[in-house]
Amino acid sequence: MIRVPAEPVGPFSDAWRRCVGTGRAELALRRDFQDSLRIVQREIGFDLIRGHGLFSDGMGVVRPYDQAGLRGVQHNFTYLDQVIDAYLEAGIRPFLELGFMPEELASGTQTVFWWKGNITPPRSHQDWADLVRATLTHLVDRHGLDEVRTWPIEVWNEPNLDIFWQDADEKAYHHLYEVTAHAVKEVDASLQVGGPAISPGADEWLPRFTEFTDRHDVPLDFVSRHAYTSGPAQRVPFSSYQTLAPASGLLDQFATPRRQLQGTRYAGLPVHITEFNSSYCPDNLIHDTAFNAAYLAPVLAHGGELADSFSYWTFSDMFEEAGVPTALFHGGFGLLTHRQIRKPTFHLYAFLSRTGPDLLALGDHHLVTRHPDGRVTALAWAPVDPTGETPGPDRHEVHLSIPLAGTEAFVRRSTVDETHGNAYTAWRAMGSPRSPKQGQLDMLHEASQPSRTHDRLPLADGRADLRLTLARNEITLVELSPVVDESFAWWDETRLLGRDPR
Amino acid sequence: MIRVPAEPVGPFSDAWRRCVGTGRAELALRRDFQDSLRIVQREIGFDLIRGHGLFSDGMGVVRPYDQAGLRGVQHNFTYLDQVIDAYLEAGIRPFLELGFMPEELASGTQTVFWWKGNITPPRSHQDWADLVRATLTHLVDRHGLDEVRTWPIEVWNEPNLDIFWQDADEKAYHHLYEVTAHAVKEVDASLQVGGPAISPGADEWLPRFTEFTDRHDVPLDFVSRHAYTSGPAQRVPFSSYQTLAPASGLLDQFATPRRQLQGTRYAGLPVHITEFNSSYCPDNLIHDTAFNAAYLAPVLAHGGELADSFSYWTFSDMFEEAGVPTALFHGGFGLLTHRQIRKPTFHLYAFLSRTGPDLLALGDHHLVTRHPDGRVTALAWAPVDPTGETPGPDRHEVHLSIPLAGTEAFVRRSTVDETHGNAYTAWRAMGSPRSPKQGQLDMLHEASQPSRTHDRLPLADGRADLRLTLARNEITLVELSPVVDESFAWWDETRLLGRDPR
Amino acid sequence: MIRVPAEPVGPFSDAWRRCVGTGRAELALRRDFQDSLRIVQREIGFDLIRGHGLFSDGMGVVRPYDQAGLRGVQHNFTYLDQVIDAYLEAGIRPFLELGFMPEELASGTQTVFWWKGNITPPRSHQDWADLVRATLTHLVDRHGLDEVRTWPIEVWNEPNLDIFWQDADEKAYHHLYEVTAHAVKEVDASLQVGGPAISPGADEWLPRFTEFTDRHDVPLDFVSRHAYTSGPAQRVPFSSYQTLAPASGLLDQFATPRRQLQGTRYAGLPVHITEFNSSYCPDNLIHDTAFNAAYLAPVLAHGGELADSFSYWTFSDMFEEAGVPTALFHGGFGLLTHRQIRKPTFHLYAFLSRTGPDLLALGDHHLVTRHPDGRVTALAWAPVDPTGETPGPDRHEVHLSIPLAGTEAFVRRSTVDETHGNAYTAWRAMGSPRSPKQGQLDMLHEASQPSRTHDRLPLADGRADLRLTLARNEITLVELSPVVDESFAWWDETRLLGRDPR
Amino acid sequence: MIRVPAEPVGPFSDAWRRCVGTGRAELALRRDFQDSLRIVQREIGFDLIRGHGLFSDGMGVVRPYDQAGLRGVQHNFTYLDQVIDAYLEAGIRPFLELGFMPEELASGTQTVFWWKGNITPPRSHQDWADLVRATLTHLVDRHGLDEVRTWPIEVWNEPNLDIFWQDADEKAYHHLYEVTAHAVKEVDASLQVGGPAISPGADEWLPRFTEFTDRHDVPLDFVSRHAYTSGPAQRVPFSSYQTLAPASGLLDQFATPRRQLQGTRYAGLPVHITEFNSSYCPDNLIHDTAFNAAYLAPVLAHGGELADSFSYWTFSDMFEEAGVPTALFHGGFGLLTHRQIRKPTFHLYAFLSRTGPDLLALGDHHLVTRHPDGRVTALAWAPVDPTGETPGPDRHEVHLSIPLAGTEAFVRRSTVDETHGNAYTAWRAMGSPRSPKQGQLDMLHEASQPSRTHDRLPLADGRADLRLTLARNEITLVELSPVVDESFAWWDETRLLGRDPR
Repeated sequence: MIRVPAEPVGPFSDAWRRCVGTGRAELALRRDFQDSLRIVQREIGFDLIRGHGLFSDGMGVVRPYDQAGLRGVQHNFTYLDQVIDAYLEAGIRPFLELGFMPEELASGTQTVFWWKGNITPPRSHQDWADLVRATLTHLVDRHGLDEVRTWPIEVWNEPNLDIFWQDADEKAYHHLYEVTAHAVKEVDASLQVGGPAISPGADEWLPRFTEFTDRHDVPLDFVSRHAYTSGPAQRVPFSSYQTLAPASGLLDQFATPRRQLQGTRYAGLPVHITEFNSSYCPDNLIHDTAFNAAYLAPVLAHGGELADSFSYWTFSDMFEEAGVPTALFHGGFGLLTHRQIRKPTFHLYAFLSRTGPDLLALGDHHLVTRHPDGRVTALAWAPVDPTGETPGPDRHEVHLSIPLAGTEAFVRRSTVDETHGNAYTAWRAMGSPRSPKQGQLDMLHEASQPSRTHDRLPLADGRADLRLTLARNEITLVELSPVVDESFAWWDETRLLGRDPR
Repeated sequence: MIRVPAEPVGPFSDAWRRCVGTGRAELALRRDFQDSLRIVQREIGFDLIRGHGLFSDGMGVVRPYDQAGLRGVQHNFTYLDQVIDAYLEAGIRPFLELGFMPEELASGTQTVFWWKGNITPPRSHQDWADLVRATLTHLVDRHGLDEVRTWPIEVWNEPNLDIFWQDADEKAYHHLYEVTAHAVKEVDASLQVGGPAISPGADEWLPRFTEFTDRHDVPLDFVSRHAYTSGPAQRVPFSSYQTLAPASGLLDQFATPRRQLQGTRYAGLPVHITEFNSSYCPDNLIHDTAFNAAYLAPVLAHGGELADSFSYWTFSDMFEEAGVPTALFHGGFGLLTHRQIRKPTFHLYAFLSRTGPDLLALGDHHLVTRHPDGRVTALAWAPVDPTGETPGPDRHEVHLSIPLAGTEAFVRRSTVDETHGNAYTAWRAMGSPRSPKQGQLDMLHEASQPSRTHDRLPLADGRADLRLTLARNEITLVELSPVVDESFAWWDETRLLGRDPR
Repeated sequence: MIRVPAEPVGPFSDAWRRCVGTGRAELALRRDFQDSLRIVQREIGFDLIRGHGLFSDGMGVVRPYDQAGLRGVQHNFTYLDQVIDAYLEAGIRPFLELGFMPEELASGTQTVFWWKGNITPPRSHQDWADLVRATLTHLVDRHGLDEVRTWPIEVWNEPNLDIFWQDADEKAYHHLYEVTAHAVKEVDASLQVGGPAISPGADEWLPRFTEFTDRHDVPLDFVSRHAYTSGPAQRVPFSSYQTLAPASGLLDQFATPRRQLQGTRYAGLPVHITEFNSSYCPDNLIHDTAFNAAYLAPVLAHGGELADSFSYWTFSDMFEEAGVPTALFHGGFGLLTHRQIRKPTFHLYAFLSRTGPDLLALGDHHLVTRHPDGRVTALAWAPVDPTGETPGPDRHEVHLSIPLAGTEAFVRRSTVDETHGNAYTAWRAMGSPRSPKQGQLDMLHEASQPSRTHDRLPLADGRADLRLTLARNEITLVELSPVVDESFAWWDETRLLGRDPR
Repeated sequence: MIRVPAEPVGPFSDAWRRCVGTGRAELALRRDFQDSLRIVQREIGFDLIRGHGLFSDGMGVVRPYDQAGLRGVQHNFTYLDQVIDAYLEAGIRPFLELGFMPEELASGTQTVFWWKGNITPPRSHQDWADLVRATLTHLVDRHGLDEVRTWPIEVWNEPNLDIFWQDADEKAYHHLYEVTAHAVKEVDASLQVGGPAISPGADEWLPRFTEFTDRHDVPLDFVSRHAYTSGPAQRVPFSSYQTLAPASGLLDQFATPRRQLQGTRYAGLPVHITEFNSSYCPDNLIHDTAFNAAYLAPVLAHGGELADSFSYWTFSDMFEEAGVPTALFHGGFGLLTHRQIRKPTFHLYAFLSRTGPDLLALGDHHLVTRHPDGRVTALAWAPVDPTGETPGPDRHEVHLSIPLAGTEAFVRRSTVDETHGNAYTAWRAMGSPRSPKQGQLDMLHEASQPSRTHDRLPLADGRADLRLTLARNEITLVELSPVVDESFAWWDETRLLGRDPR
């Protein structure tokens, strides 16, 4: 039995809610995207949202013209404004990622993704800087400096990979960063700019990057990188299978930047993990499972000790890097599928959103917090086997002694596992309908709801004795609050069918 | 094992959805009422709604004046129009009950209920007839005759009880009916009028009533009565306890009018049970329980064989006959509490709304139907002990062999019992908060959802073998549909974590 | 021509938006009420809402019981919570008026209004104090002290009139106030309590009231009174006609409390005019007219100089003091009719809500303000003849020289007068349909919109020359902003139909 | 004066509402699109919607794969279902246009539009036929045959233009049509298929097409063509200027198919004008003007005499053929701009949606209809000068004698012209803000509302004398209804301010 202390050991960081990922910018124009974002914001509530493609051609920001003897480039914010307005209306702010390259400004034709983001350097860094300045100037004019100052601005995405940045040319990235950071600061010195947004496996880029910014006195307000634990993709049509390293590998990646910056002038700088997930493939069905939630639970619980934000990649399956999805469940990154079906990892976040600011205990499989009004939450998760050799244990016991005021506790337990709060397994049982009909969608929405139980426990010495048995891949949230009994004194359930009073 | 026939034994009547009851007319102006009605209509979908008080003073229909030498009575439809508009917008039509007596027209001062409905005959039957004519003329003008012709018009409520009709004066009721029926038909002969809307325990009123209409050639388009099975109220503050007769007693009451009309000129007339429930008390907590749902399940399943409609009294706890409710759960008649918490009996109706038009089997504890598209639903319910001597069996087996096309069935089971889909028991565990806070309401909404399980069953010889174990007071809906497997052939769940393909 | 100064002469007080009136408390349960309140809050945005009947029986706060040998009084907040929740959801806070007397606590049977508010003193001041304490304790528990502390608490309504307080017994009121104020402060000393909520014509009550509180050291955090300018009602059925004093009479009444408190220990106390309007009759058609808006315009413009709030009585025609309204337009107090038709006075408030915080000029018929972003608003109103001897001038000129940055002004003018933004006159033309059909309501909604014109004016020396001609009973809002021209340089309207370029 | 007959001369065809155009299929996923469609359906109410790109790659219908030794093409309806669901939810049905060519099936690389629709024939007509069959089979499975049977199916778009069909190869189109029509009928013989969807200027294609279908016995259920009156585009950056032929040219084009089919076996076939507008350029500002509405008014009034449908191209500016729009008003085809600002032509349609089914008179500048309930509508429009030589007359008189029941008429007039109901001119005055801020959008929404006047006219001999003066480019709708006066007899407006009664 774990005896949870009655006094907080410190605050519980809510870095987990700082940021979430999204598919490319113009997807924000879609209704399904906006419907999903509203649900995510209502039931979880992230602060920031980050995705690619702000300057890609679908956004129409750079509009060249050559007509009637008139020739030039027009900066055009029709869609950018619609995208940002959609974010703000949903109660979330942009974490701006500047990229990819508008065709008009590009030095080459290489693209990434089904939707063809151009990943080559600018032909003219001057034109690029003009674009950056014009965009930020417009945003400041439209939304005010006080607002835009709260939007971190990241330069490019994973320049260490040649699929994202031509030849993974590090020197060229440093140059792009330099030009961009100066352009940002010309709009206003208080705007926050950072990089290098590297993928896992390129840790050495960060020290070289900060050496560069240090040596050339280039503005740098935060550093960023990504974290994934999956191995190489084993491709089948429309899907990938991958091995996964243990979840601690994610925390190791979260921890790297602070360790690397230690002892430099950048030691205190915010560290943003601007993407993370188990698998980096947008078609790995692991994303849709309860396993994914149980696997990530300790990462979300501990991540705030290591980084200022870590952004789940992504909130919605409305995402087209590998083309239009071929089935409702297709291994997309989303917390939600198209049509807003909640996945187990959605519930992991929703459970976290019910935790309190005071940390009472954090262990290998439990996280106990308290709210100012005295409510206590205990999140527990089953151990998983990421090797895939076993299905994971089918029972796991967590036994907690929880401090609580009063004489009785109202105890609500919410469960997500292989058969509860699990629309994916219901969908498989249903026959995996690729584009379900309305009646099927209704059932999947219902299937996606966690199971709930409600109980009343006596307290002894201000403590509840909580014995939890977790099923395979279960995450469970237990909420305890002191009972204030407002029943009328004369109510007597034994009389409900008219029997004589006791 | 019950072998359900592969071919329908007939249609399954949807008389259960014909009508539902409501508190007095002006409550329809309330937002809580309208929010509840929308949920009921979306998830159940009744055709008609019936309640008291159309002419009571809160509706302001009769407005006397005496000013500046001008004197008279103005008929005023400000609220009536708002009420009917609210019904129609929610997709439900009024079953008009003409009553009670506007103070201005009343011959006496006797009232019923906290809200003081005057239950005395009109001082002048001429003035009453004017009111009836003016009201119906107005409704026809506003909504069209084709519409109003579908609204049954019932004269008064339970005239056989002296709390509802002064002295329970039968002759006076006959006179009122005669005057009213003629007034209705003067507006248009196709309008549908009926009565006598009697309470249980006054069966003899119906033959005397039809003798009267027959003898005097008074229009009569339908007959109506009420049905309840509860004994005398044992009062405690704000609550009543009562004994209940077996549920079959309700079916007996439903059956009486047709039996009584047999052989008369009225033999074919529609029979409307314009109110029914277990208890007639608006403060009997039995209404909030799973017991109530299991108790009424056979009544709803069989009722359509006996009457053209039977109207659950009532859809919402927004109801004030005994005053303003003192607690969220207070034994109100509603399918929904204030603030739209679904009760077990709500789910009984919601389960029925998922049945199909073809009846395959109807037994003591099961109802099996089929939809035109081949889906099959099986509703089952636990036996209950209405004596209250025992809590009812804690396990009940139902074993069905269900015919279904294809080779596999997708099987979804939805459960409501003492701990699932049961906000009342969660609320009790919570401490019975009389006016819950938002966070508590959210939990109660979640607690009110039925539990759902999803499975895939092999079919043998076109049949699924369905073994259901029901818990105490459980009602359960099983939905079976043929599996059409759309999985990609190459999907292999064993590879999810990157293991080599089988 | 009036040359409006380029620099502010001070702030423009928004005391006009501090508070608005409402019909009795339980009307807030109605959907029409809530729909109206949302519109008012979205388009105007008041801080507080005040009305009668918090403790009247329709709210069910005091529930006596006497059953099964149990006897007592239960305080019951089912509806109170629904009412306050509805306010807060709409973004408005209650200005609590404690009254009238629950029947159970009343010493007599005298009532006021169609809905029968009991206006007699408590039988037991102890029971009354218990009720006050229980209510405020409950509210603080539910909403938090920080919230409830912002809700002023007023004791009773117009005790100087014998229709509102038995015998208009001043000493009895002082006693009630004393008991109540102490009960409030026992819950928390920071709660704000005040009175005496007197009607016009009883100015002498205020000094006697403050003498009393001073002498007995009774808590007093604000003083309150009402203001109306109408003479005696000339009654016809369902309507009243009245003479009106000039609008300056309202300002005189607003000014009285501060003048009376001058030199006393209460000199700095907030002064709340907790009701005002032209006529105090809920059935005087003057409320529905453009005259009312033009008449009140100077009152709203100047009122903030004299009092901390002045609360228009009331925001909605959902109001039943004289019974259920007999026609859509019936002279109700509302800014909105039933079904949310905006009246001219609604637009007066909506126009004010577009003014800026900096006052540039305030004259007899104009109010000019500026926003921090440089936009300027000019509100102008026609002079009216409150004697009714003339219809008022049919043209009135206002000529303003308005300071503005830039070289051109975008000028939008919004007009409400006898034929624009005037659903009442459209309704009269339509035949005064008492309960309009949907198609008529749609037309009335459209008729209620102010007319709008749009123009572009050159600026000379940083000034726009604004010549306004106002029609009879017109209120007009002119909004000026500097033009930033973003047209493409090559656009040429003369080529729209393909003619050769100039 | 025109004496409008008291009896209908026939029905007024509502062919104008049969169909409306839209940008490419996947734009229907956008929220702005769906918001606009809802407004259009609520205020106008079209039956069908037609646009390009059903099979273009953005829809992801054809998904080739080649992985792990598995190779093939998957038909994928994820987005198609979302698009059609969005239509049906909005209450509109698809007019399916089959095209353009999925890259995977294309024989060449030639594309049209910014969004790159491939316009080459299929490499394999067998694969194309498979796609057509799979798609329709899926739609019938999802929506039912009764539903899909009401969706006309058109083969390709403007094959007579080499920008839409490689080499404008007529024989290749005939072949494509033949293969497609047979594929459609294989799914179900009752599905409706047609073509050839030709642009103006290719009238000779239709007889050759029907000769082909006749000779080869190819199914043909309707014929279709397009109609525009604009001359060659004079391009400036992001805009085009064009001459326009008189509006009668559109009616001539509408009339051609029926004339061409006369005397053939296809004489009775439905004729659908599947696109029409003044200009065919998506960046001609004429679309945003009052001129466009006045120009098209007679076309909409008379078009139903000549064709079974004529589909305005298009309902929304959410349209990307020429790239992402560079300004809110940019000459897009839409009835609505982005963000739902109504253009004058929107109001032309909205006015028509208020006409009645009985035609009383149709002249050069007026259309008078009657509703079954007796209401009469008169639509009038100013003459325009399409040469652009003059701005058009600034006054135009229409004098009508209108038959109406009763003794008085309630007359509402709604006006759209250069300064009323004209957000475009307000936007120009505002400085043409390319991406307006919220406050500007609010003003533009208000500016887009028609002006309304309300009057009461005496009737003489059952006729109202209606003298209308129309301003430049005005369209005006006058709605007349008999006054039923429900004023209280004792109301006296002269007493409003308390003067003695007359």
